[in-house]
Amino acid sequence: MKEINGGVTAPKGFFASGIYAGIKKKRKDMALVYSDVPAKGAGTFTTNVVKAAPVLWDIKLTKESDNIQAVVINSGVANACTGEEGEKNNLIMAETVARELNIPVSAVYTASTGVIGKQMPIDIIRAAIPKLAKELDNSAEAGTLAAEAIMTTDTYSKQCAVSVIIGGKEVTIGGMAKGSGMIHPNMATLICVVTTDAAISKELLQEAVSEDVRHTFNMISVDRDTSTNDSLLALANGKAGNAGITEKNDDYYTFCKALNTVTTKLSKMIAADGEGATKLIEVTVNGAKTWNEAAVLSKSIISSNLVKTAVFGNDANWGRILCAMGYSGVDFDPYKVDLTIESEDGSLQLVKDGMSADYSEEFATKILSAKEVKAIVDMKQGTASATAWGCDFSYDYVRINADYRS
Amino acid sequence: MKEINGGVTAPKGFFASGIYAGIKKKRKDMALVYSDVPAKGAGTFTTNVVKAAPVLWDIKLTKESDNIQAVVINSGVANACTGEEGEKNNLIMAETVARELNIPVSAVYTASTGVIGKQMPIDIIRAAIPKLAKELDNSAEAGTLAAEAIMTTDTYSKQCAVSVIIGGKEVTIGGMAKGSGMIHPNMATLICVVTTDAAISKELLQEAVSEDVRHTFNMISVDRDTSTNDSLLALANGKAGNAGITEKNDDYYTFCKALNTVTTKLSKMIAADGEGATKLIEVTVNGAKTWNEAAVLSKSIISSNLVKTAVFGNDANWGRILCAMGYSGVDFDPYKVDLTIESEDGSLQLVKDGMSADYSEEFATKILSAKEVKAIVDMKQGTASATAWGCDFSYDYVRINADYRS
Repeated sequence: MKEINGGVTAPKGFFASGIYAGIKKKRKDMALVYSDVPAKGAGTFTTNVVKAAPVLWDIKLTKESDNIQAVVINSGVANACTGEEGEKNNLIMAETVARELNIPVSAVYTASTGVIGKQMPIDIIRAAIPKLAKELDNSAEAGTLAAEAIMTTDTYSKQCAVSVIIGGKEVTIGGMAKGSGMIHPNMATLICVVTTDAAISKELLQEAVSEDVRHTFNMISVDRDTSTNDSLLALANGKAGNAGITEKNDDYYTFCKALNTVTTKLSKMIAADGEGATKLIEVTVNGAKTWNEAAVLSKSIISSNLVKTAVFGNDANWGRILCAMGYSGVDFDPYKVDLTIESEDGSLQLVKDGMSADYSEEFATKILSAKEVKAIVDMKQGTASATAWGCDFSYDYVRINADYRS
Repeated sequence: MKEINGGVTAPKGFFASGIYAGIKKKRKDMALVYSDVPAKGAGTFTTNVVKAAPVLWDIKLTKESDNIQAVVINSGVANACTGEEGEKNNLIMAETVARELNIPVSAVYTASTGVIGKQMPIDIIRAAIPKLAKELDNSAEAGTLAAEAIMTTDTYSKQCAVSVIIGGKEVTIGGMAKGSGMIHPNMATLICVVTTDAAISKELLQEAVSEDVRHTFNMISVDRDTSTNDSLLALANGKAGNAGITEKNDDYYTFCKALNTVTTKLSKMIAADGEGATKLIEVTVNGAKTWNEAAVLSKSIISSNLVKTAVFGNDANWGRILCAMGYSGVDFDPYKVDLTIESEDGSLQLVKDGMSADYSEEFATKILSAKEVKAIVDMKQGTASATAWGCDFSYDYVRINADYRS
């Protein structure tokens, strides 16, 4: 497997564009991804009871449509809590793209991100789509423009791509994502688009992404708020020319591994760029009884405001980590737990058998001052492991969210 | 029922003291509450798997001891994640108090609050207890000293008392509590001591507090972090001279109502004084299918970082409220939900049938600028109601918790 330049336009046959339509005040706010041949579509979506109009639309298409060729995305308005008018506007967005690209409306995924409860400025959106379609391009730069256009409070765009040999053919997977706030995904992240030229059945593509998000996007948290708009959309157009993946053979697992490389990278980028974040926190729980318990424990740690503020302050207040494990709902013996922190500046054991190890606070502070900090927990109660990603909690999270709409 | 001055020393036969022992740098750090006759004891405790040594001790006493006469509390060190040495130190604290007051060690509840993972400075504590016992007094001032001595990052002490007529006798209930951070109680708050001169059986006292905390302390959240040390301890010494409450008659329900007045007031004080809080937020959910659903919904709203930062910014970003309801785990029809905000500056409907009501952002900001803000949700899907309390999320929460230990 090798990492390659670019994002959603890296696989064969994929085009993208990103423009300023006028929904937001200044920055780019509409993106389009297009496959020049019909592709299989798969998706995972928020478990929030309050689902945005585009989420409802995509869930329907994922079930019913065998041909997905485009994803249109706007930022600035989430099209959530907008009722029938919201659903109508979402359909207009999809129809306008379908007409412009000469494809069926059932081939157009939609996604929206931004303020909840405001109706879409549908005239602006409708007017911008011809330009969006005209600027479609298969260059890496076009992929970057699209990744930039879906940003809200993100401070940088997030994309990556890998290629891998499947059945003698080079298969490429690319992806872009946006995150930043209201990030505690439960089935997918805010918005992520994965493109691939792999030939794979719709069913296995769905299974691959559904399984993958459990280990990637569902393992990150910025603020424990599961959005109304979380969507991961995957398109596979078969242009790599590999023998179609229709069973769980070696080709399937090679594909899953490559997919996981892309989604893990995007997940970590989202966590590191959480609203107000100054550093990425990676928590690995080893020695748990089951994967599920390891996942719950690591996510509970990564989600704790008190852990996050301590890491922001470079303070090795490990009691907050044990506390967050204790209220996670998992039953365990606290007096078996070991805890080590790690960064480019070194590694240090803070906790041995549930109590303070003899460690230097000064060295702990040095380790925690790095841009990427790891905490490794050993439960010593089993063999299962899981990793979760989050970020620290700074003044800027408060600043950003106290006046998000102004 | 009437509210009266004071706290834990308001009921007949209760004495208290609060002193500076030297555990913390400057402020008072040890408190003692004493009943001059044997009292019934009851308690509710954290559900965190990681339980502090005093919590384990109190759980045991609550089960096994029929006579509680004292509660000794230190602030500064939580005595959690301290293993056998922690349990030994806790026992030394209880034994020293027992000896000093000439009561059995099984009559002494203990509580600790502060940093997790540090061993107790037991010599300092042991040396301070004679002074603590000597200064016991039944004045309101003594109650205040005790309430001050249990504070950590609290900015003011929390106490209150009410009296009520039960069976022709005046019965008094007093209480003190501390909160501030790591506040998302699950069975009780960080530390709350309730005293009463009511004559009531141990079983009914326990039932009354267990039922009560579901509606009071368990309905507040500052930061979603359920502490290792949450304890509510109740002592009833019977000195009011009422006919003992031994069944669920009118006297019992009168007692419960008075208890609820004390605990609701303390709960609101804790929420309002959450770390960094600039205002109290009260969320009432009406029209839910069950009380449990109403409770989960209101607590989900009050716990959302995004709701809390919006309220800090006086921003009526109601989408975040619907979003927090949506990921609470309760199933409901979002397009039936109404939402109104309220404060001393007026009342304003923001949401009608799940969508934006026609409202003035300016007026909404004015309402949200008050020191106490209410959000009233009507689910229109049933008849159950619940209320939860929390606070906004300001820069100071981050400041306080980024360098809590320094």
